[in-house]
Amino acid sequence: MKYEYLTNVPLEQARDEYLTFLSDAGMESRVESIPVTNALGRITSRAVYAKICAPHYNAAAMDGIALAASKTFGASETTPVTLEDEDFIRVDTGDPLPQGCDAVVMLEDVVETEKGSLIYAPAAPWQHIRQIGEDICAGDMILPSYTIVSPAALGAMLAGGVLEAEVIAKPVIGILPTGDEIVPPSVNPGLGEVMEFNSAIFSGMLTQWGAQPRVYSILRDDLETLRKGIKTALGECDGILIGAGTSAGRDDYTTLILKEIGQVLYHGIAIKPGKPAVLARVGTKPVLGVPGYPVSGILVLEELFKPVIYALLRQPLEEPALCLATLTKRVNSSLKYREFIRVRLSSGPLGLMAVPLNRGAGVVTSFVKADAILDVPQNAEGYEAGSELSVRLLRPLSQIKNTLSIVGSHDPLLDEAADILRRENPALSVASSHVGSMGGILAVKRGEAIMAGVHLLDTDTGVYNKSYIQRYFPDGDGVLLRCVGRIQGLMVAQGNPLGVQGFRDIERLRFVNRQGGSGTRILCDHLIKESGLDKARIDGYAREEFTHTAVAAQIAAGTADAGLGIRSAAGIYGLDFIPICTEEYDLLIKSENLSLPLVRIFLDIVKGEEFRRRLELLGGYTLNMPGTEIEL
Amino acid sequence: MKYEYLTNVPLEQARDEYLTFLSDAGMESRVESIPVTNALGRITSRAVYAKICAPHYNAAAMDGIALAASKTFGASETTPVTLEDEDFIRVDTGDPLPQGCDAVVMLEDVVETEKGSLIYAPAAPWQHIRQIGEDICAGDMILPSYTIVSPAALGAMLAGGVLEAEVIAKPVIGILPTGDEIVPPSVNPGLGEVMEFNSAIFSGMLTQWGAQPRVYSILRDDLETLRKGIKTALGECDGILIGAGTSAGRDDYTTLILKEIGQVLYHGIAIKPGKPAVLARVGTKPVLGVPGYPVSGILVLEELFKPVIYALLRQPLEEPALCLATLTKRVNSSLKYREFIRVRLSSGPLGLMAVPLNRGAGVVTSFVKADAILDVPQNAEGYEAGSELSVRLLRPLSQIKNTLSIVGSHDPLLDEAADILRRENPALSVASSHVGSMGGILAVKRGEAIMAGVHLLDTDTGVYNKSYIQRYFPDGDGVLLRCVGRIQGLMVAQGNPLGVQGFRDIERLRFVNRQGGSGTRILCDHLIKESGLDKARIDGYAREEFTHTAVAAQIAAGTADAGLGIRSAAGIYGLDFIPICTEEYDLLIKSENLSLPLVRIFLDIVKGEEFRRRLELLGGYTLNMPGTEIEL
Repeated sequence: MKYEYLTNVPLEQARDEYLTFLSDAGMESRVESIPVTNALGRITSRAVYAKICAPHYNAAAMDGIALAASKTFGASETTPVTLEDEDFIRVDTGDPLPQGCDAVVMLEDVVETEKGSLIYAPAAPWQHIRQIGEDICAGDMILPSYTIVSPAALGAMLAGGVLEAEVIAKPVIGILPTGDEIVPPSVNPGLGEVMEFNSAIFSGMLTQWGAQPRVYSILRDDLETLRKGIKTALGECDGILIGAGTSAGRDDYTTLILKEIGQVLYHGIAIKPGKPAVLARVGTKPVLGVPGYPVSGILVLEELFKPVIYALLRQPLEEPALCLATLTKRVNSSLKYREFIRVRLSSGPLGLMAVPLNRGAGVVTSFVKADAILDVPQNAEGYEAGSELSVRLLRPLSQIKNTLSIVGSHDPLLDEAADILRRENPALSVASSHVGSMGGILAVKRGEAIMAGVHLLDTDTGVYNKSYIQRYFPDGDGVLLRCVGRIQGLMVAQGNPLGVQGFRDIERLRFVNRQGGSGTRILCDHLIKESGLDKARIDGYAREEFTHTAVAAQIAAGTADAGLGIRSAAGIYGLDFIPICTEEYDLLIKSENLSLPLVRIFLDIVKGEEFRRRLELLGGYTLNMPGTEIEL
Repeated sequence: MKYEYLTNVPLEQARDEYLTFLSDAGMESRVESIPVTNALGRITSRAVYAKICAPHYNAAAMDGIALAASKTFGASETTPVTLEDEDFIRVDTGDPLPQGCDAVVMLEDVVETEKGSLIYAPAAPWQHIRQIGEDICAGDMILPSYTIVSPAALGAMLAGGVLEAEVIAKPVIGILPTGDEIVPPSVNPGLGEVMEFNSAIFSGMLTQWGAQPRVYSILRDDLETLRKGIKTALGECDGILIGAGTSAGRDDYTTLILKEIGQVLYHGIAIKPGKPAVLARVGTKPVLGVPGYPVSGILVLEELFKPVIYALLRQPLEEPALCLATLTKRVNSSLKYREFIRVRLSSGPLGLMAVPLNRGAGVVTSFVKADAILDVPQNAEGYEAGSELSVRLLRPLSQIKNTLSIVGSHDPLLDEAADILRRENPALSVASSHVGSMGGILAVKRGEAIMAGVHLLDTDTGVYNKSYIQRYFPDGDGVLLRCVGRIQGLMVAQGNPLGVQGFRDIERLRFVNRQGGSGTRILCDHLIKESGLDKARIDGYAREEFTHTAVAAQIAAGTADAGLGIRSAAGIYGLDFIPICTEEYDLLIKSENLSLPLVRIFLDIVKGEEFRRRLELLGGYTLNMPGTEIEL
């Protein structure tokens, strides 16, 4: 096998060759002996044999009398056998069987009389006795090699007199974050500082696989520091992960050092995200260069390092749980890479729908929200909307089926309602995604979501939502439910330093807009027209954000002066707010879905006291019979 | 709700009422704040909101130049725009966007000339910029309440500036073993001492559910000791489990004390095993009296205490994974109890077969071997052999399907071969059970197992196995494969103190026999006949054990003087061995199963060097082309 610089090797090939490359070098798991009581979940490194029998003596299995069964032979209902005192011994359950006895007769079957104890039926030899080894015999194999120790197995080992277990040692994996711009997580990172949270993610993944992560301090980006750091970690660990900065070409140092002190198999895998991974070894130890973006890192660990850990722990990789789902929108993919796209699954009357999530390699929340991974092969250009595809589940289907999918316009109130839902019934969840009001209407219509939050102004009539629903649901199967009235306005910096008075002022400001199809964008266009402004002359009209909070964030950061949004978003960022209008934010649902249990529960929450309380805290909302139907 | 002594309340009722009984008393989980880096697998006690945006500044997403996009407007292939040095700033990926800039142009799209830098296409505003909040906006809800923290969620929290997480504290559950006969696990327990390994099993179960077990020292069986021990544990824990001795009536003390210091809801549940459970509370804390037999304890914890832990952790109970399987033998069950029967599942050409395991409440290995639980309702008398029933899976179906089921005659060599199999391919397993040679023939014939070990002497011809296979597989679909020759003989105490010389001597000894249908029993009967002995006059002829090691264990314990068995079993117990004959132990399989991959792999092992080496260590075996077919 030869080293190739910046290769584009297919994933399966890289994975297989890497395992061979490591086992050729003599990679081996360590073995340790630990007390059995600490062995839960550990993996036996060799077969475990019982040292003693369980039970280790013949024991009475009942409270009664122990005797030689032969003494009772011939007894019957009509001709009872009379026992002398010296014929039997009184025993309790668990007592050892006395010498010379081979049966126990239950207390209730012995009739005490003045003449002695009467027995009305013969005892069978060895009746009511727990014999030696009933459960385990000394020498029996209790567990074969490479078995995960379960709670019952702990009991079986102890019962068999095995107090120490030989198990595979947890592979200690060093995690080395690198990069001049990288800093530890904090609440107030400086400009240009990139927070290092990958090591927390990787530690979590390694722990779940049965390895023992060890996180090192961040290494500066110079050859000598890196070389020293890598050597130190290699001395203390069974393998290491070297995190790269986010900058291209930065991981060259890593490969340079690894070529110097070990061997590099590949640098560059044909996957997206995750391409710049480095597969290497030093001595017998695996060393992986991990790309800096968290999503890339997660995928590279999952696809290329999990097999290494499982090989060390002698565990087969679980077969991925697959299910079929219908893709809600077209997905393009490069022919150069196999691509892993995070999708949310929405369970509805049409079955499972797969909604692609943000594909950015830096968007770690895409993995928090994802229900499944869509695996697009290297030779595929992507898939059309409506394709039925097999996806890899990341959580149990039962959980996904207990999740209500709500799309459409962004409002923090949906998250608050979702949280109330979970607090009242932890088995249920809401998954919301922000695709704008128009996107919400289309998603509900196509069955990609159950509910949508909409606030669409009909600029002809001044009435919200109604006409849109009438147009998109001409058969009358679209139902509009009241949710909240909310105040829209201009968000500006704290203290309103530029003296903004009304919407018309945006002409002289750095504006930040919302995406096309969002209710707020439609409102913006309406206000521009009403105010007689010219879109082309508004600085930032083309600058689009997807949520109210994203607009607020830009203003709070000083990279924009004003944006249209709701009062609650301004409140979160401590921005000043110039109210412009109150709009109706309603919930759209297909009539056929109104009776779904999850929908009923969610609507009860929207009608409830806790929801009202939370909206008051957020500020900028009015409630008028939420959850009730609006006549169309 | 009233306290009932020794009730027989249905399980569902007891479970539901117990949860109500506890929440009525005000049972609540505690909350704690911990560093996010320690929060893997923990459960959020409230919604987690981002404190900062991620990224927290507008950052270059490429290496290139940052500028005002307007400076590039009008650029085209034929009319490039020339930039002055003060028009742009050189940036690397991750660098903050400089003041006054709103776009990044990739390095490769900038052509350096003597006149300045040329741009051949206009830059779109905000291109190649990772905008503030692309991943997370301050104020966004990152996780709702009661969410299990995943590795990606750790990253999302840290990225959102959340360094401390409020999580539900792990409920601390005290485990109090009680009983005068109970001793800590050891390698040489005394007569009448019962080893206390339940607390290890219960600790394992509690840990897997997310609780924190705390095991107390064994409490003697007197009222004052128990009262003091229970009160101490209640002061230190969120709930306690009180283990009972194995003796009937022993847990009366527990209920007495619990009635004195708290309330008892039920004592006695209509399940088997597990009936004598005690459901109680002291103050707001759950207290469970757990039966002493391990299998009873496991079931009571699983059915009655797991829901309590899950309620404290605000997690829904997983839906049990069910599958259909055909019952291999009739199962009787009492109408008084709902019964949980451990079954092994065997996957073969006829689908899944469920083989009931030892139903003894003391047989903890039945839980080690079990693949599933057959749940027999209270109102059912049991099920007929051949019934197709729904069983609750205890391990993944994929694992069960990778398991080769071998039944029939007991021999440690099967376990050794199974261990070699796992060492060579950890994804595969062998499940063997000992039903005797005749049982093995029937199981293979009926499709309940793939393979059987058989050693059946045809006393007319002196030939092993052949005639039996011809009789039971008249269509010729039974294939006999050579395995080993093994030496049978009399096992007697070390040093042969009774001077046993041959089989005929058993007439004057305490004998221990094997079960009917086993090859060794058939050999025994043949030897008795041949020796002119009288079964009725052999002391212990009716005393049956199911394995060679169980016979050896009785002799080693001095409760029998002699038994027929194989040399390897005598060797394990250090017994003397008087050889009698060499028999053929072969493997029976249906011809249609010969090509199954698992069978091929297993036979390769039987043919291999490691198997030969291990048999040599066991002693008493000869090998003659193992794994090859015997002509019938």
